[in-house]
Amino acid sequence: MRNSIGTNVVLTLFGESHGPAVGAVIDGLAAGIPVDQDFIASQLSKRRPKGPVDTARREKDQYQILSGVFNGRTTGAPLCIIIPNEDVRSADYEATKSLARPSHADYVAQVKYGGFQDYRGGGHFSGRVTAAIVAAGAVAIKALEAKGIRIGTHILECGGVRDTDFNDLGSPESADLLESFVKAVNEKDFPVVEDIEEAITARILEAKSDSDSIGGMIQTAVTGLEPGLGEPWFDSLEGVLSKALFSIGGIKGVEFGSGFGFARMKGSEANDSFCMIDGKVRSLTNHNGGINGGISNGMPVVFNCAVKPTPSIAKEQRTVDFLKGQDAPLCLKGRHDPAIVRRICIVVSSLVAIVLCDVLASSRGTDYLK
Amino acid sequence: MRNSIGTNVVLTLFGESHGPAVGAVIDGLAAGIPVDQDFIASQLSKRRPKGPVDTARREKDQYQILSGVFNGRTTGAPLCIIIPNEDVRSADYEATKSLARPSHADYVAQVKYGGFQDYRGGGHFSGRVTAAIVAAGAVAIKALEAKGIRIGTHILECGGVRDTDFNDLGSPESADLLESFVKAVNEKDFPVVEDIEEAITARILEAKSDSDSIGGMIQTAVTGLEPGLGEPWFDSLEGVLSKALFSIGGIKGVEFGSGFGFARMKGSEANDSFCMIDGKVRSLTNHNGGINGGISNGMPVVFNCAVKPTPSIAKEQRTVDFLKGQDAPLCLKGRHDPAIVRRICIVVSSLVAIVLCDVLASSRGTDYLK
Amino acid sequence: MRNSIGTNVVLTLFGESHGPAVGAVIDGLAAGIPVDQDFIASQLSKRRPKGPVDTARREKDQYQILSGVFNGRTTGAPLCIIIPNEDVRSADYEATKSLARPSHADYVAQVKYGGFQDYRGGGHFSGRVTAAIVAAGAVAIKALEAKGIRIGTHILECGGVRDTDFNDLGSPESADLLESFVKAVNEKDFPVVEDIEEAITARILEAKSDSDSIGGMIQTAVTGLEPGLGEPWFDSLEGVLSKALFSIGGIKGVEFGSGFGFARMKGSEANDSFCMIDGKVRSLTNHNGGINGGISNGMPVVFNCAVKPTPSIAKEQRTVDFLKGQDAPLCLKGRHDPAIVRRICIVVSSLVAIVLCDVLASSRGTDYLK
Amino acid sequence: MRNSIGTNVVLTLFGESHGPAVGAVIDGLAAGIPVDQDFIASQLSKRRPKGPVDTARREKDQYQILSGVFNGRTTGAPLCIIIPNEDVRSADYEATKSLARPSHADYVAQVKYGGFQDYRGGGHFSGRVTAAIVAAGAVAIKALEAKGIRIGTHILECGGVRDTDFNDLGSPESADLLESFVKAVNEKDFPVVEDIEEAITARILEAKSDSDSIGGMIQTAVTGLEPGLGEPWFDSLEGVLSKALFSIGGIKGVEFGSGFGFARMKGSEANDSFCMIDGKVRSLTNHNGGINGGISNGMPVVFNCAVKPTPSIAKEQRTVDFLKGQDAPLCLKGRHDPAIVRRICIVVSSLVAIVLCDVLASSRGTDYLK
Repeated sequence: MRNSIGTNVVLTLFGESHGPAVGAVIDGLAAGIPVDQDFIASQLSKRRPKGPVDTARREKDQYQILSGVFNGRTTGAPLCIIIPNEDVRSADYEATKSLARPSHADYVAQVKYGGFQDYRGGGHFSGRVTAAIVAAGAVAIKALEAKGIRIGTHILECGGVRDTDFNDLGSPESADLLESFVKAVNEKDFPVVEDIEEAITARILEAKSDSDSIGGMIQTAVTGLEPGLGEPWFDSLEGVLSKALFSIGGIKGVEFGSGFGFARMKGSEANDSFCMIDGKVRSLTNHNGGINGGISNGMPVVFNCAVKPTPSIAKEQRTVDFLKGQDAPLCLKGRHDPAIVRRICIVVSSLVAIVLCDVLASSRGTDYLK
Repeated sequence: MRNSIGTNVVLTLFGESHGPAVGAVIDGLAAGIPVDQDFIASQLSKRRPKGPVDTARREKDQYQILSGVFNGRTTGAPLCIIIPNEDVRSADYEATKSLARPSHADYVAQVKYGGFQDYRGGGHFSGRVTAAIVAAGAVAIKALEAKGIRIGTHILECGGVRDTDFNDLGSPESADLLESFVKAVNEKDFPVVEDIEEAITARILEAKSDSDSIGGMIQTAVTGLEPGLGEPWFDSLEGVLSKALFSIGGIKGVEFGSGFGFARMKGSEANDSFCMIDGKVRSLTNHNGGINGGISNGMPVVFNCAVKPTPSIAKEQRTVDFLKGQDAPLCLKGRHDPAIVRRICIVVSSLVAIVLCDVLASSRGTDYLK
Repeated sequence: MRNSIGTNVVLTLFGESHGPAVGAVIDGLAAGIPVDQDFIASQLSKRRPKGPVDTARREKDQYQILSGVFNGRTTGAPLCIIIPNEDVRSADYEATKSLARPSHADYVAQVKYGGFQDYRGGGHFSGRVTAAIVAAGAVAIKALEAKGIRIGTHILECGGVRDTDFNDLGSPESADLLESFVKAVNEKDFPVVEDIEEAITARILEAKSDSDSIGGMIQTAVTGLEPGLGEPWFDSLEGVLSKALFSIGGIKGVEFGSGFGFARMKGSEANDSFCMIDGKVRSLTNHNGGINGGISNGMPVVFNCAVKPTPSIAKEQRTVDFLKGQDAPLCLKGRHDPAIVRRICIVVSSLVAIVLCDVLASSRGTDYLK
Repeated sequence: MRNSIGTNVVLTLFGESHGPAVGAVIDGLAAGIPVDQDFIASQLSKRRPKGPVDTARREKDQYQILSGVFNGRTTGAPLCIIIPNEDVRSADYEATKSLARPSHADYVAQVKYGGFQDYRGGGHFSGRVTAAIVAAGAVAIKALEAKGIRIGTHILECGGVRDTDFNDLGSPESADLLESFVKAVNEKDFPVVEDIEEAITARILEAKSDSDSIGGMIQTAVTGLEPGLGEPWFDSLEGVLSKALFSIGGIKGVEFGSGFGFARMKGSEANDSFCMIDGKVRSLTNHNGGINGGISNGMPVVFNCAVKPTPSIAKEQRTVDFLKGQDAPLCLKGRHDPAIVRRICIVVSSLVAIVLCDVLASSRGTDYLK
């Protein structure tokens, strides 16, 4: 399956950083879903580098829908959306094309593709490809919202600054608050709940001025998901989500609910007791992040992703020239993000939306999202 | 795909805790792989409950190969292996069948399967099904070892007691030491590197005597994996491994290399500088856990899994009776593990072996493992 | 995917002719489907060799359900059913194991599996494996019948003797007659509409007495299928059915509706004009076999399969010894069917039922068949 | 999987007849395959309507490669190729949009997509989408030719005029002749071996002048395919090819080798005796079309497809208006092919090439085609 994910709603990605375009095909969406072109544009805008903490590359993201939409709605046929590449400065990469940038995919690409890979700007490994995820995901997000399902991703921690932890809102009483936070972060270009944009920005700029980069942690909540979604083996909700998430460059850890915190808990602390509330089964806490046995239990699905520091830094580094087979110093030019925690949030929400459309179509049939 | 995983080597699981048998079909293995029946038995033995820290259920695990093996070797046809269930005490579950055990799959199974699920002992959600993974995985492990690939999983932390962290052995100089640790934990029934079995056992028994359970963290290293394995989107090595891992009941977090530690690192600390050693490209550190851009880079693949405390505890808990639709207290009978960190290690290694066979077959062709 | 077929309802086959058992895992069936064990037995009985026109091998087909059924209904977990092998005379195959039986899979198996294949009785290529299809298919057939969908397969032609052609019953007025014929052939051990059992049997026995075998043509009708099932590219109804059908040994041609007859028709003859009947869209003729653009149109789905003569014949044949790499004469022992047209009918209906369950689950959601 | 086909080399199609473009993504191709842009153009030219027997719609087929090619070779990343639509006359379809053209997909599309489908020119069901198959297939054809594998498709019969039957060239002695015929038909715009272009053209024009259309039969041979490719269940070579073939609009029957002819043969006639020729296993005849047990046997793979008459005819027809729910006469405007046998040949060869790339990658690994 390689560059495709999904069983009934399938996303296929294509494109390289410096090629004609990046794009996505999303197949299996129900016919009749409204396609809100302004929303697609505004979602792309959230991903776009813009402020001082982002790369200096400026993308217009003039997307084009090639198929699958007619009279403003999905047709049921595969939807292909492309985003032509602009502001490409390939020359930046020519001089260093045989130098394996540390923690980048240059070396593995050389091994895997034998020198035929498009090395400019990371080629198909580039974060640029995530623009296509955001564009396709915008359609999925709207389809889910029509079913009362909402996805929000925020920066949980960066540079030592922490935002509200959605896991602290696990009780049924906190449901409305969590919902409002999810909506709030979706409205913002800098997705945080607390008033910490400046503090985080300062830490990122500090790293940048030091020719360095920093990592962080992001957190996603999905509200409104009905119980019973996912499969025990192997299409568990955790499994399909994590597979998607780990495809996003820079994500090196995924934990659901209390995640690694479980390692130091007792069963009596960790178990989420069930209770009846307004005739519905709920749990008093949500340590399991809304998932039991791989299947949604009706509580909000909450998970965290670890984001590594951008590997492209201006500091001189040690590496190898893989064509010459010898050690070599590396001084990176090009334009890079000193941190990607801000821009990655919308990518995660978009990809999660597509995965959830697939999960719903698999459980409820294609037409469920119509 | 539900209960199957893999593209070219496909594992399918079936069976319930209290049904006639659990089993696995593994399809796509090369013909001619030696099937070592003693090794299968010894692997099952490592998973089997035996000591005071395990459940009192005693399984003989008399497995039977129904197909795919002829004259002691794989035939290339699907290999079906079953393990009949014994020592089943279904009556334990009759009284509580409509009580949703907290953090268990009872409630979601009721929603998803509408009351038709086999509720006895967790049915198809039971950890009992992992016996089939271990049996099938034993064939995969031997096939990989013939190619110089070795997988070891140990308890990294339990009850506050920590073992050697394989991430601290990330330099090329530590390669032999890591390899020896991997071999060592595979020889042991209680898979740890340091002399900490007693300390961990004490903490588990402490929890047990308190009618409680505890969680932990396990760590896996894969050595000998060549560079270039995995795909950028979406069949990244991290993606396919995490999807498999999250299917194992109790695993709620997966991180590769420094994982969540990346959140507090700078790029200059996190980047793994490449260097030439004996004519091969290696990295000076291995924060990325052997994976760049979703593809193996030739360094050991290292990842951690968070394991939640066994949800089945003897302490009285609060829950709901989902048939009556009302709150109810829960006093669990039955036989349960106060911690599953020991038994889960061999399951993880076995499942990882099967996934890696698939990755190798996908990259190198089916016959590569012959 | 190899030995599996399906997207949402997935069938996996395993087993060899002379191994411990053949079996099937069917995954993705809705929970709550009644499992009629007598019906499974009676379906297996229809496939079983019994009369003079079948092989002398006598199979008891004592099947066993290992998983996925609880209290007489499917649980939603994978259903594994096995049929132990009996009356195995492996010695028949020992002497000729390196002789490639013409039109059999012996030679290709040797090339593909390098000598590790189980050659006894054709191993995994054996028609014996179809017993597992019939057993699993019996569950699918009952699930479809509960939705008003009925599948019937009959011998359309054998030895020059022809049965009623369901394509001649393509008009809306013939619907009831077609339905009654479908029911009738499902009641019979020798599935034909007309009174031609004796005539066909005579031709088969004639071939047998001449140490030869004969082929034939079979025809399947599916009634009660709603319009809108299937996909334009590539999961067309014709595509998914033909892929399944061609897996059955001996089937070398598949045609829908007028099939190869279209080659000599004009558009004005071939087109099925639509009309309104009782408020429903129907077509006056059914040359397209109930499928337009790969999607069911509400008319009966009708298709024919060409069945080649059993390749195992007692006549001396010319072949090669692939181990010695030289020509060799072949005198086959063993017990063989002089024609498989009778026994293959129930296999086709069973496999079609499983494929249709998948198509329905993909379009309408898993729970549709509950 | 819907609009995708393949396991390791995956083709995804998108686009509508009157939308911005049709296109294909082909993923999983080895890196380093030369991409011959002139050859792509010349293949598209063969499919393009041009003479009097084709539709009057004139397409320029100015294709564009959006990704996956760098410096004239494949990169290993997904290759996306699009062909903008031109000469679109959507108004032709406006008046008849609720009239179900007989034997077309209009009615099933209405049922399946609930009125949201793009009905103009058949939308995603249009034969126009096959242009994308031809473009993507051109890359596959060149990759196969580099391995000595050649695919040729010719008109076997149309209007009662028959071409040379490749099945008559099944003996090892005829191998060179068959190879030369395959090459010959690939050079021609009107793909036939014998001097019958005029005769067939006359029959087609005769039908056209009668406001009618005619069907036909086409035949494909694949030479140079090594033995051992394909799987017993369910990815048999016959299965994967037929699934692809039946996706092409108008194909209603597929038979391998003697196909439906087997129905009237005896085993002693039908069996292909093996023999040693120049140290290789060959068969004296090739009734099985190069496939035994679903796996290639080293002989040419030969199969026929039945092509139905173009359903769009100028003659008045009877049909229904599915929005009004009543009978209605239909007088079609628009530009249509009186027969598609000529243009479909290159589509079949192209699609078969892509399927074979997948089969080879699955058996031999991705890099085999490099």
